[in-house]
Amino acid sequence: MAGSFYPPQRTLMGPGPSDMNPRTTLALSRPIIGHLDPLFVQMMDEIKSKLQYAFQTTNTLTLPISGPGSAGMEACFVNLVEPNDKVIVCQNGVFGGRMKENVIRCGAKPIMIEDTWGTPVDLNKVEDAFKKNGDVKAVAFVQAETSTGVQSDAKAIADLACKYTSLTIMDSVTSLGGTPVKVDEWSIDAVYSGTQKCLSCIPGLSPVTFSEAAQAVIVGRKTQVQSWFLDMNLIMGYWGSNAKRAYHHTAPINPLYALHEALCILEEEGLENAWKRHQYHHEALVAGLEAMGLSMLVKEEHRLPQLNSIKIPDGVDEAKVRNRLLNEFQLEIGAGLGPLAGKIWRIGLMGHSASQRNVLYCLNSLESVLLTEGVPVPSGAAIKAALAEYQN
Amino acid sequence: MAGSFYPPQRTLMGPGPSDMNPRTTLALSRPIIGHLDPLFVQMMDEIKSKLQYAFQTTNTLTLPISGPGSAGMEACFVNLVEPNDKVIVCQNGVFGGRMKENVIRCGAKPIMIEDTWGTPVDLNKVEDAFKKNGDVKAVAFVQAETSTGVQSDAKAIADLACKYTSLTIMDSVTSLGGTPVKVDEWSIDAVYSGTQKCLSCIPGLSPVTFSEAAQAVIVGRKTQVQSWFLDMNLIMGYWGSNAKRAYHHTAPINPLYALHEALCILEEEGLENAWKRHQYHHEALVAGLEAMGLSMLVKEEHRLPQLNSIKIPDGVDEAKVRNRLLNEFQLEIGAGLGPLAGKIWRIGLMGHSASQRNVLYCLNSLESVLLTEGVPVPSGAAIKAALAEYQN
Repeated sequence: MAGSFYPPQRTLMGPGPSDMNPRTTLALSRPIIGHLDPLFVQMMDEIKSKLQYAFQTTNTLTLPISGPGSAGMEACFVNLVEPNDKVIVCQNGVFGGRMKENVIRCGAKPIMIEDTWGTPVDLNKVEDAFKKNGDVKAVAFVQAETSTGVQSDAKAIADLACKYTSLTIMDSVTSLGGTPVKVDEWSIDAVYSGTQKCLSCIPGLSPVTFSEAAQAVIVGRKTQVQSWFLDMNLIMGYWGSNAKRAYHHTAPINPLYALHEALCILEEEGLENAWKRHQYHHEALVAGLEAMGLSMLVKEEHRLPQLNSIKIPDGVDEAKVRNRLLNEFQLEIGAGLGPLAGKIWRIGLMGHSASQRNVLYCLNSLESVLLTEGVPVPSGAAIKAALAEYQN
Repeated sequence: MAGSFYPPQRTLMGPGPSDMNPRTTLALSRPIIGHLDPLFVQMMDEIKSKLQYAFQTTNTLTLPISGPGSAGMEACFVNLVEPNDKVIVCQNGVFGGRMKENVIRCGAKPIMIEDTWGTPVDLNKVEDAFKKNGDVKAVAFVQAETSTGVQSDAKAIADLACKYTSLTIMDSVTSLGGTPVKVDEWSIDAVYSGTQKCLSCIPGLSPVTFSEAAQAVIVGRKTQVQSWFLDMNLIMGYWGSNAKRAYHHTAPINPLYALHEALCILEEEGLENAWKRHQYHHEALVAGLEAMGLSMLVKEEHRLPQLNSIKIPDGVDEAKVRNRLLNEFQLEIGAGLGPLAGKIWRIGLMGHSASQRNVLYCLNSLESVLLTEGVPVPSGAAIKAALAEYQN
């Protein structure tokens, strides 16, 4: 039988998980206590309030679902959507497709709006869909498409939803902590996120928040939520503010220690500083990549600083480059998915990974590998351009 | 804003989580790597094979669901049960009631068999239910009821299911690693468990295993699985043995390091030795409790060694006793649930908590608190009886 597993130390610059701050990693190993222990319950309250800060909301129903981002996504859909509801789903990457699957499995009708991968959600199409379809229950969209590196205009989509009295469901898995997520200011009704991206915690938890309007919809459902595990009516009893906590499931104790610590780190830095830091390192990375002769998939105005999609130069064996980076440099970058498989690399600058050390290491490593793979890269140009950008 | 959270060091002898082996706790803090990293994928394969050992099965579809036990429960139901199916649900505690909820939310019909809390599933009632209802899709039962400390006869229930050509769904959350779970020998079709009980890992993962027959049912469904997150058709693609792993969700990396380590520890000890150890410490604990004048809820032949339900003596403020144990002795024991609330305490001897140190510490602490609460406990008798039992 295989013995203990000792992972190597990688530098994580893929689409997530990201590098973790050692404080967060060590928080995982603090002593386990009971999930109904008064001290644990107090920590749960602190996590709720720290997540309200991260989401920029006063929503009382703000908590981490005990599962990965896809469980958080499902929590939003199964709680808000009932059979035969119409839901506008904006698809411009992998995760919009997953939303469609969720709508169908709720017995509801997805109204699909499709945009080319690498471009943002087209607002005109969203408005057309509202005009053509009366009685839309919700519009669902991905704020930050991890599969392409594109940011869509969350506020504008929410304004349309408001105009046509529809709920909004937003995927902020890759945005939370990296780029602005202003749930109250934008009036978003249901948002789910992940912990392994710009929060730099482990995967396996999904912060969610529901507006008052969304809560009213959940409480007033005609049908029962099809998932017992994700039924917010029950989860509210466990995470709720009433003195008597009802046992629902056993929360993943130590991962929540880590999330608490990651959120402390975010507070100490300040949300706006964190957003600025992501943008700052993104600009240096892009300057370096372009100086190397590489080009970005996404137009500048729609780029996510935390997820950089780079077109693969002609004739390059893209998997070999990634494998060499991983095996020789212990550096992980991401591959393309779906129609972008084989066409892009995805370089993440998420949370703790958004640092000058990582930017320079990545540029140098990629340059070394591309040079030995026969790509005519101007030697040293990338670092020079990145450093110049940093000095701007 | 609240700063970092530093939990105290508790001794965990409630219904789970249990104390963790320091090896497992420290495994949590190993460096994070990507969830599609070849080394991580290799570790996933090792976990599958170690879980096959723990479950005593050769089932290829054996893996940890990325959520707590209630997600594992839901995975079994939503994958095997379709609308209008009939499912016999044996309820003799909290978790049978949860199974009923799952059956209803699948649009299926639960046929309830109810037994008094504190007693095992009555096999005659199960057979009667099969006789009265043709075409039963599955029988679902809890092998080890955490809410009462009762063990039911899994093999006998599975034999009945076989006789009436029904599937079996078994809850082994509290049994796995503590008392025999022989999936292949007993022919159980779907089993889910938890990691925070006798495996002494953190909560948040749910090992599951599905027989060939169960897999055939999943693949041959008429309707789509209502949960995208828990659809085994998709999860098989991520955890499957084919060379090309399909991205489904991001596995909770570091918690899986801990599960891997916990399973290494189980292998080193050997399953049968682990079962014997639980029984050994259980007998000493019971000898001590009885010497103190306390009595057990469950008849000896149906007792789970890992979960000991004790009747609360008349006139004792049970919550005060638990709170004093927690605050003065840093010792957690469990309260009763449902009809047993206020009537029993639940003392867990699960995994790493099943040790002589914990048994003696618990007896001494409980004696001290009961004495100062005015309960006429014969001083020193508990430890004497427990030590005598250990020397037997």
